[in-house]
Amino acid sequence: MNETINLGVIGAGRIGLLHIENILHNIPGFKIKAVAEIMIDKNLELKKKLERLRIPVITNDYKKILEDKEIKAVLICSSTDTHAKFIIESANYGKDIFCEKPIHYDLDEIRKALDAVKKSNVKLQIGFNRRYDHNFRRVRQFIEDGTIGVPHIIKITSRDPAPPPIEYIRVSGGLFNDMTIHDWDMARYLGGKQTGDIVEVYATGGVLVDPKIGTEGGDIDTCAVILKYENGAMGLIDNSRQAVYGYDQRVEVFGSKGMAKAENDTPNRVELYVKDFTRLDKIPFFFLERYMQSYTDEMKEFYNCLIENKEPSCTGYDGLMATVVAKAALKSLKENSPVKIKEII
Amino acid sequence: MNETINLGVIGAGRIGLLHIENILHNIPGFKIKAVAEIMIDKNLELKKKLERLRIPVITNDYKKILEDKEIKAVLICSSTDTHAKFIIESANYGKDIFCEKPIHYDLDEIRKALDAVKKSNVKLQIGFNRRYDHNFRRVRQFIEDGTIGVPHIIKITSRDPAPPPIEYIRVSGGLFNDMTIHDWDMARYLGGKQTGDIVEVYATGGVLVDPKIGTEGGDIDTCAVILKYENGAMGLIDNSRQAVYGYDQRVEVFGSKGMAKAENDTPNRVELYVKDFTRLDKIPFFFLERYMQSYTDEMKEFYNCLIENKEPSCTGYDGLMATVVAKAALKSLKENSPVKIKEII
Amino acid sequence: MNETINLGVIGAGRIGLLHIENILHNIPGFKIKAVAEIMIDKNLELKKKLERLRIPVITNDYKKILEDKEIKAVLICSSTDTHAKFIIESANYGKDIFCEKPIHYDLDEIRKALDAVKKSNVKLQIGFNRRYDHNFRRVRQFIEDGTIGVPHIIKITSRDPAPPPIEYIRVSGGLFNDMTIHDWDMARYLGGKQTGDIVEVYATGGVLVDPKIGTEGGDIDTCAVILKYENGAMGLIDNSRQAVYGYDQRVEVFGSKGMAKAENDTPNRVELYVKDFTRLDKIPFFFLERYMQSYTDEMKEFYNCLIENKEPSCTGYDGLMATVVAKAALKSLKENSPVKIKEII
Amino acid sequence: MNETINLGVIGAGRIGLLHIENILHNIPGFKIKAVAEIMIDKNLELKKKLERLRIPVITNDYKKILEDKEIKAVLICSSTDTHAKFIIESANYGKDIFCEKPIHYDLDEIRKALDAVKKSNVKLQIGFNRRYDHNFRRVRQFIEDGTIGVPHIIKITSRDPAPPPIEYIRVSGGLFNDMTIHDWDMARYLGGKQTGDIVEVYATGGVLVDPKIGTEGGDIDTCAVILKYENGAMGLIDNSRQAVYGYDQRVEVFGSKGMAKAENDTPNRVELYVKDFTRLDKIPFFFLERYMQSYTDEMKEFYNCLIENKEPSCTGYDGLMATVVAKAALKSLKENSPVKIKEII
Repeated sequence: MNETINLGVIGAGRIGLLHIENILHNIPGFKIKAVAEIMIDKNLELKKKLERLRIPVITNDYKKILEDKEIKAVLICSSTDTHAKFIIESANYGKDIFCEKPIHYDLDEIRKALDAVKKSNVKLQIGFNRRYDHNFRRVRQFIEDGTIGVPHIIKITSRDPAPPPIEYIRVSGGLFNDMTIHDWDMARYLGGKQTGDIVEVYATGGVLVDPKIGTEGGDIDTCAVILKYENGAMGLIDNSRQAVYGYDQRVEVFGSKGMAKAENDTPNRVELYVKDFTRLDKIPFFFLERYMQSYTDEMKEFYNCLIENKEPSCTGYDGLMATVVAKAALKSLKENSPVKIKEII
Repeated sequence: MNETINLGVIGAGRIGLLHIENILHNIPGFKIKAVAEIMIDKNLELKKKLERLRIPVITNDYKKILEDKEIKAVLICSSTDTHAKFIIESANYGKDIFCEKPIHYDLDEIRKALDAVKKSNVKLQIGFNRRYDHNFRRVRQFIEDGTIGVPHIIKITSRDPAPPPIEYIRVSGGLFNDMTIHDWDMARYLGGKQTGDIVEVYATGGVLVDPKIGTEGGDIDTCAVILKYENGAMGLIDNSRQAVYGYDQRVEVFGSKGMAKAENDTPNRVELYVKDFTRLDKIPFFFLERYMQSYTDEMKEFYNCLIENKEPSCTGYDGLMATVVAKAALKSLKENSPVKIKEII
Repeated sequence: MNETINLGVIGAGRIGLLHIENILHNIPGFKIKAVAEIMIDKNLELKKKLERLRIPVITNDYKKILEDKEIKAVLICSSTDTHAKFIIESANYGKDIFCEKPIHYDLDEIRKALDAVKKSNVKLQIGFNRRYDHNFRRVRQFIEDGTIGVPHIIKITSRDPAPPPIEYIRVSGGLFNDMTIHDWDMARYLGGKQTGDIVEVYATGGVLVDPKIGTEGGDIDTCAVILKYENGAMGLIDNSRQAVYGYDQRVEVFGSKGMAKAENDTPNRVELYVKDFTRLDKIPFFFLERYMQSYTDEMKEFYNCLIENKEPSCTGYDGLMATVVAKAALKSLKENSPVKIKEII
Repeated sequence: MNETINLGVIGAGRIGLLHIENILHNIPGFKIKAVAEIMIDKNLELKKKLERLRIPVITNDYKKILEDKEIKAVLICSSTDTHAKFIIESANYGKDIFCEKPIHYDLDEIRKALDAVKKSNVKLQIGFNRRYDHNFRRVRQFIEDGTIGVPHIIKITSRDPAPPPIEYIRVSGGLFNDMTIHDWDMARYLGGKQTGDIVEVYATGGVLVDPKIGTEGGDIDTCAVILKYENGAMGLIDNSRQAVYGYDQRVEVFGSKGMAKAENDTPNRVELYVKDFTRLDKIPFFFLERYMQSYTDEMKEFYNCLIENKEPSCTGYDGLMATVVAKAALKSLKENSPVKIKEII
C-alpha cells in the first residue's frame, strides 16, 4: 500500500468532490495532483475548497491533466455526455481510467470508448459503487461460495427519499438511466456466472408520486420490472422516487439451497419501547450516509488494480450492459411488452 | 357468542378435517352435526377419528346434510371440481355456505354458483384464510386507516417448503391456480379500495426446482408476476415450489406515506450467538404451523356473519376474481405478453 | 394419547378456570370429572360457566373429589395458603397431584406436604409454567446440549405491565414470593446441572412505581438481584411491577461457548416505516397472551407422566427451593447483605 | 471548523496512534505538531510511521511539547501511572488537556491533578469514548428528553472477545479498573441528573474463563454488579473477559414511561436462510471495529470545546468518580458486602 500514484480528476461536481475528499482521507496511495473543472473560474467557493485541500493543480482545462506525464490515472466525474469523450482521450494518452456511471446513453459512443480503452491497453473501472456495499457484497459472496445454490429469484428494491427537481429529471436520461441504472448493474452483479446475463426485460411504470414528473419532466417516478436470466432465473426490481421513510435499498437472492436477504442499514441499534409501540430510528436518509464506505472500497480496488496490474472487477462491459438493459426497459415500457436483450445489443 | 348453529361438513380430507378439529376446539358456537365424506367407508381410520370426535352423523351421502333441517350452514371442503355443484345445491336448500378456494377453474361454473347463491339469498364465504393471518391483516389495517397513504407498490412473496408429488401437480390446475391463487387474492385484499382492482397481469415462470415438474407434471415451479391496479399501483409476486429453509410468506406495501412490511413468523425469539455466527431457528415449516390461527379467525367471521346476519368480507366475487386473474396469468405466461383482466372477464 | 384419566380440580379462580378451559380444548386425554370451588354457591356466573362446559360434578366440597375413586388426579388451584393442606390430603387419598406455585410460604408446611407425597408414592408436579415457554425452553436446550458451554452469567428480566391493586399486594406474600417466585425457579431451571443450584442471593429493591405500594402495601415494586451458583456462575434478575410497554419477559444465558438470548414475543411481524421512525407493534400485554401455550405444555407433561408412570420434571423439590430462595432474598433485602441459601434451608 | 489548533501527543502506543491517525483523517481543525513517545528510539517502525504521517516533531522528550508555545492542547495517551503527572505539568504550562482514562488508581493523585487543572483554568476532557457511541448516546437522549421517564433500572453488558495476556492482567489494575471502568462511567452517564449519582455498589465475581487469570494474574475474569443511585434506581452490570462470539456491548434503560435498549452493532444487514437455521454474521470483533466513530466524536467535542471555549461534557470529575466506584466495587468484592460510595470518597 506504499506506492504513490498521481491522479487527475476531471469534473468536481458533487460526485467528483466526494471522490476527492474520500481519497484524501482514506486512500493514502493516491495523490491527487490535479483537478480540472470547467466551471472552476465561476465557482470560487469550490476553488477555495480545493485550495484548502492542497490540490497542487486546479484548472479549467482537462488537457493539463492528460498532458501531465506524472499523472498515471484519471477519474472522470464530469457530466454524463462527456464521459465517453474523456475515456477516449484519456486512453489515447495512456492513462488508466475510473469513470462514473453511466458511460453514455448512446451504445455506439460507449463502444467507441471501450475500443479506445482496448487499443491503448489501459485499465477502465466503472463507478458502480453499490457493488462495493457491505450488504450487497455479502449477499454476492453467499452466491459465489455456493451457500444458497443456484439463484432462482433475484429481488432488488431501490427507492429514493425524495424526487430531484423537475429540471434535473428533464435531463436525467429518464428513471431507467438515472435511477434504475444501479439496479440493472446490481441485477447482473448478483446473478453473476451462476445465472448468466440478463436476456429479457419487462418494464412497467407510472407517475404516482408527483404528476409534474410526468407532465413537465416527461418521465415516470415509479416502476416495476421483471428480468429473465440465461439460466431461467427471474429478477424483480421496484423503484420509487419518493420513500418518505428514507433511502430504501434492499436485495434478496433466493436459490436452490437457501436465501440471502439484505435489509436496510440502520443508524443505530436502539429499540425504544413506549406505551403504544416499539420504535426504531429511521434508516439512513440518502446515498451519502448509506454508501460512503462503498465509495472508499471501489477506489481501493482501483488503486489495487493499478498497483498489482489487475483488471478491475467492474468493467467497461458492465458499463455498456447497464445501458443496454436500460434501453431494453425503455422499449418495453413504451410497447408494454417484454423485450429481448439481443434486440438491443 | 352463545347461540349454537348446526353445521354440516362436505368433504373430510386434509382441509375438511382441519376445519372440523378447529371448530371443535375453538368455535363453541358451531355444532358439527354431520360430516359427509364420499370415501368414508373405505377410510376406516378417518371414520374412527370422526366417531372419537363425537360427530353425530357420519355419512358418505352429502344429501343427508342438505336435507337435515336442523343444519343451517354447510362447509364445502370436497375436491375443487365439486365446489360449484355443492354451492348450488346447498344454496337451493337454503343453507349458508363456507366454501374452500378456488370455487372452480371454469368461470361459467363459478358464475352459475354465484347466481344460485344470489337467488337463494344465502351467505357465501370463500376460504381465503390468509386474509385472516395476523401479519397480513395488520398490513391491511395500515392501508385502510391511511397510515401508509395510497399504495404504489405491493409485493408478495410466497414459497412452499417442498414441491408436492408429481401426481398432485398434474391435477392441481397448475401453479397459478394451486399456489398463486392465494396471492391473486392477497394482492386484491391488500390493494382494496385504495388501489382498485387488478387490471392487467404479466406472468412469467419456469421449471427451476425439478425438471419432472415440467416434463411429467406439465407445470412450472417458479414464477414472477407484475400486476397493475386501477389506480396505477404495481404489484410484484414471486412463487417457488421449494424454499429449503421453510414456508416463506411475506408481503410488503409501499405507499405515499410509508411502508408496511410483514416478515415471516418465527418459532421463538431466541438468538444464539456462537463462535462463527448468530443463529435463529427456522421459520415455520408449512401452512399448518403458519396459518392455524387464520383458520380459526375465518371461521369466527363465518359464525359471526350468520349470528349477526352480515355479509362475509371474503365474498363469492373474490372467489371469482382470483380465478379470473389466474386465467389472465396463464394466458400471459403462454403468450409472454401482458394480459388485461377485462379480456378474461 | 388415547387413555382417558379422570381429573378433579380444587379451586376455580382465574388460574383454575384457565386450566379447566385449556384442558377441555387441548388435552383430550384428561376428563374433568369434578370441580370443587368453595365460593361456588355465591358465584352463580361461574357455576353457569362450569355447567356450560359440561363438568359433571360441580361442588363446594373438595372432599367429593378426594373420595371419588374414579378420579385419579387432582389439580390444586386454590388460594396459596391451602396448597400444602390439599397436597397432603390428596396424597393420603392416593391421588396424583398438579399444584399451582408456590406450595406455601412456610418451609415446614412445604416439607410436610412433600413428605406426604413421598409416603403415598403419588406424583406431584408444580405449576411453574414458564419452564414450558417456547423461548425459555429453547434457551435451556442450548445449555443442555452443550451448544453454549458452561453457563457463566444468567440474566432474567421480568416486568409486569401494571401493578395489581394494593389489596392484592398486601396479601401477596411480597414481590419476591408473588412475582420473583417465577424467576427464582427460572434461574434454577436455566442453570440446571450445569451450574448446580443457587448458593447465595443478594437482593435489593425499592418503591419506584407507586409510593402506595410501600406505604399501604408494605412491599417494594422494583428489584435487582444477584445470585451465585455452585459452579461460580452469577445470575442477575430485575423485576418491575410496571412496564408501560407491556409484559417484558426475557432471559439470557452466557456461557463458555456462546450466548442464547430470548427476546419478547411479538404479536406480529409487521414493520411499519413512516416519516419519523420505524414502528413495531407492542409486545403481548400480559401472561395470558404470552404464556398460554406453556399452560398447555405443562398439562401435557402432567398427562404424559401419569400415562407413562414418569416423574414430572418440575418437582415438589423445585417448589420448595423457589420459596427457600425467596426467603433468602427477603432476608438479604432487609439486611442489605448477601445471604447464603444454606442459612435458610 | 476552520481555525487550526496545534496539538501535542504524549504517548504513541496503541491508543495514542489511534488518536493520531483519527485526527489526521477526520479532525482537520487539529494539527498534530509534535508526538512525544519515550520508547521512540527503540521503536523504529513507529518512528517511520510517524514520519510517514508527516508529524513535524517526533521526540522522546515530552517537555518539548510542553515548552512549545504554539502547541495549545495536549493529548495524554501514555501509561496510566503517568496520566496524573502529565495532567499537572500540562496544566502548569497552560495547555488544554485530553487525557485517556483512567486518570490514576490513587484518588489523591487524581485530586491533585484536578486541582492543578482548576488552578490553571485549563480544559480537561477524559477519554470515556463510549459516551460518544451512537447507540449509547441515543439511549441517553431518550432519557434526557423524557421519552422513557425516570430511570428505574439501568443495565450494562460489556464482554470482551478474549482475555488479554496474563502479563497484561497483572499490571491492569484488575478487572474493575481495566474493563469495568468503562461501565462505571457508562452507568453514571446513562443515569445523569435523572437518577443522580451512584451511592452504593455490590460487586461479585469469579474466575470462570481461565484459572490462570486467578492463579497467575491475581484477578477475576467475570463479574456481576448491582448499583444503587440517589433516586433509588438500580443498576446491573455484567462483564466477562471472553465472549467467544465477539465484543458484546449493550445497554438498557428501563424507566417510568418506557425502555430504551441498545443491541450490538452488526457488520451488515444480511440474513441468510438455509436448511437448518437463519444466520446472521458475527457482531464486530473488538473495540476498533465497534467504537471507531466514538473516538472521532469525542475528539470533535474536544476541538469544539477549545474553539468555542466550552467545558467538555466528560470532565475530570467523571474521571475521578469512575475510579471511586471501581474502588468501592473492589472493597465490595473482597468483603462480599455492599459498599457505600461515600465510604470511599
